[in-house]
Amino acid sequence: MSVAGETRAFGLRHLLGMEGVAREDIVTILDLADAMAQISERPIKKVPTLRGKTVITLFAEPSTRTRASFELAGKRLSAEVINLSASTSSFQKGESLLDTARNLEAMRPDILILRHSAAGAPHFLADRLGCAILNAGDGWHAHPSQALLDCATIRKHKGSLDGLEVAICGDIRHSRVARCNVIALQTLGAKVRCAGPRTMMPVGMEEQYGVTVHDRIEAAVEGADVVMMLRLQLERQRGALFPNAREYARFYGLNPARAALAKPDAIIMHPGPMNRGLEIDPAVADGERSVILEQVTYGVAVRMALLCLFAGVRPEVG
Amino acid sequence: MSVAGETRAFGLRHLLGMEGVAREDIVTILDLADAMAQISERPIKKVPTLRGKTVITLFAEPSTRTRASFELAGKRLSAEVINLSASTSSFQKGESLLDTARNLEAMRPDILILRHSAAGAPHFLADRLGCAILNAGDGWHAHPSQALLDCATIRKHKGSLDGLEVAICGDIRHSRVARCNVIALQTLGAKVRCAGPRTMMPVGMEEQYGVTVHDRIEAAVEGADVVMMLRLQLERQRGALFPNAREYARFYGLNPARAALAKPDAIIMHPGPMNRGLEIDPAVADGERSVILEQVTYGVAVRMALLCLFAGVRPEVG
Amino acid sequence: MSVAGETRAFGLRHLLGMEGVAREDIVTILDLADAMAQISERPIKKVPTLRGKTVITLFAEPSTRTRASFELAGKRLSAEVINLSASTSSFQKGESLLDTARNLEAMRPDILILRHSAAGAPHFLADRLGCAILNAGDGWHAHPSQALLDCATIRKHKGSLDGLEVAICGDIRHSRVARCNVIALQTLGAKVRCAGPRTMMPVGMEEQYGVTVHDRIEAAVEGADVVMMLRLQLERQRGALFPNAREYARFYGLNPARAALAKPDAIIMHPGPMNRGLEIDPAVADGERSVILEQVTYGVAVRMALLCLFAGVRPEVG
Repeated sequence: MSVAGETRAFGLRHLLGMEGVAREDIVTILDLADAMAQISERPIKKVPTLRGKTVITLFAEPSTRTRASFELAGKRLSAEVINLSASTSSFQKGESLLDTARNLEAMRPDILILRHSAAGAPHFLADRLGCAILNAGDGWHAHPSQALLDCATIRKHKGSLDGLEVAICGDIRHSRVARCNVIALQTLGAKVRCAGPRTMMPVGMEEQYGVTVHDRIEAAVEGADVVMMLRLQLERQRGALFPNAREYARFYGLNPARAALAKPDAIIMHPGPMNRGLEIDPAVADGERSVILEQVTYGVAVRMALLCLFAGVRPEVG
Repeated sequence: MSVAGETRAFGLRHLLGMEGVAREDIVTILDLADAMAQISERPIKKVPTLRGKTVITLFAEPSTRTRASFELAGKRLSAEVINLSASTSSFQKGESLLDTARNLEAMRPDILILRHSAAGAPHFLADRLGCAILNAGDGWHAHPSQALLDCATIRKHKGSLDGLEVAICGDIRHSRVARCNVIALQTLGAKVRCAGPRTMMPVGMEEQYGVTVHDRIEAAVEGADVVMMLRLQLERQRGALFPNAREYARFYGLNPARAALAKPDAIIMHPGPMNRGLEIDPAVADGERSVILEQVTYGVAVRMALLCLFAGVRPEVG
Repeated sequence: MSVAGETRAFGLRHLLGMEGVAREDIVTILDLADAMAQISERPIKKVPTLRGKTVITLFAEPSTRTRASFELAGKRLSAEVINLSASTSSFQKGESLLDTARNLEAMRPDILILRHSAAGAPHFLADRLGCAILNAGDGWHAHPSQALLDCATIRKHKGSLDGLEVAICGDIRHSRVARCNVIALQTLGAKVRCAGPRTMMPVGMEEQYGVTVHDRIEAAVEGADVVMMLRLQLERQRGALFPNAREYARFYGLNPARAALAKPDAIIMHPGPMNRGLEIDPAVADGERSVILEQVTYGVAVRMALLCLFAGVRPEVG
């Protein structure tokens, strides 16, 4: 499949969030991700596309899957990948994020991938640096590569997102994944229903994003094509937003009975890491409608596509 | 030397411990390791054998040499190596080992190398994952690549292990190295003598493993072809198993006088890291019969062999 | 530009400090760095010069830029780079630095890059190991690759260092950068003026190094071609060496008024990470005479040159 023949230029210089990202650009990413997904299934999972390009990951918060996914994406494209984490960085010596990033930029990376606890940190850098910035998660704000891999996974299973009913359930308020997905899914034509405890639902979701909001998970899941459960961000919450874990699982966990309310061919998603028995029942997480591990596989493919596009390289994928 | 011409298939899907590993498979590993050892002595220490293969190391306990040894083995074979450690992993977010490993598997590695504090952790994953699992140390249980590199080092010096007398001395009880070596050495035809304080000797060693057990180190070392000293696992012991360090060195340390009891051409081994002056005297550790650093060199070669075999690639080594 | 045609052999086996390093060897490094600097400006920032060579970084102190700079230098030359940090090393298990280093050497690296809190640690290893040791910072003692990249940056801007007036200002006593720069700059023909509080100025600087010493920064900066500000090593100081941060900035910080005392075409340098508003005013750090980020860019180039020279490879750079 040749992607190189397209004529419209890719419209983004940075990937900071999903706000304002054009449908055409999302489709470009997903199309290229489909081509990239084939590479990871070959005996020799490596192509020379990004040979001689430099990717720096700067993670000021711990992460397994996202950093590893980006690193692997870079390596399968033959890029050089340099990993920096908060514990080994000059942050400890009181240097500002901007100075750290400027220093890294002076080493001539093509792409800087940033995870940071402060919402807006990647935007701040994007206004001040020359290299492409990919936001790998900033506080509660955004995690756009996760939304894109979710869209890629859905499109793989459903062909198109147009007119799909997608339920996003759980701790919407603390979820950068939810925020990005709402926007990306709607840009691609899906309708979004959100459900969760009132204490975890941002005020004005309906007005701001045009989604439907439900207090009870059953109402959101009923008749849905896609059910996306969110991780209960125990480590991000300050103060008790629900009585206890057992109560949460009882009222908001996706168990087999609730999952059965969705369409018969609905798919079940979760961005991970899962709290099994809390927001999702193991029988559902490991069930045949679960595509949770496919999301991870698509994560590498979507990030390969992002690295190509933001490095300015449109590969011929044979 | 061509290894590719062999006809018998390699019999292992995972390397979890040395129990039940056939002599033929060990010999296949050691033969390939001998060929691989040549690569690290060349001016250009790299071959394309595992180009496009992905190796993930997941270390839930700190380690210098084992992780670096596997990483270097992978890189000298042109594999992509992704390192994950406990401090940056989703373990911190309460994810189970199985979910973490399944997520990594979904990124399509060819081999997953695991170090974990829980004995049996690699076996648990091997039953549930599709990719090859190499155990790089699980609690007190097993550390098979260490046993294999020890066997490779001995074979290099002695030609064959058949009929050799090997003394393993020290803290047998807390040593995953000892357990694996006892089995591997016997599979290759060596006779094993164990010595150590009663408090550090598992009950029933003679019956279970067919070794001879001695309270005093002198009895084990006398007439031995190989003397293998174990690291006193200070960090693994709960409670005092011997009066103090000086007492331990006095009764169980390998000093020159004790080393002289072994055969004149005996070799001295230690898996590292050494507690100098405790289980081994510096004069012995740095003496001309010591092969301790050769063990490290063979470590890279044995791990190169393991990566090839478990990735299903039998290289021509010219 | 061909560097391979030179006939004089490079005179160094290790890079431990700048003491005793011949002018010719520094010039060889800087000339090769100028050639290497071009590589990082190309669309494909990678050459095969060090394919099959192994570089190990062993950092017993945290660092962003130095480790990343060496890693990137190695990768752009196609070397294999293995990173080891204190937190994952056998240091934690009580192994000596020498045993750790010997173990790493047994894995057949071509170059070992060491950062350590103890002054003299790299010298200690250089006397005992066979592979080349590059000192990436040892306590207050030396940081020679920083001095070399500073010299490379100055030469780029001034053509030659002969006869230049260089002011080094701040916490001279705790600065390994200052010590190395004083020697390297003088070897290349520059005259050095040092300024800083008495409590941060080593006794006998004039006699030992032949520099001029000033209590007030203005006297050192006046008429200088180069002004090099030092990081206030807050993390290295034991006890209060000056009343407080505001006092320090007031008397020893480089503000626009003080910077104006230097020659009109003077350049402003800082090794980073900067304490903005303390030893340097943001208006100066970000001003048009600042070459602080160029220093970082040259850091990669100088380290590429060092890796080639210490691996014994003199590249043709086209």
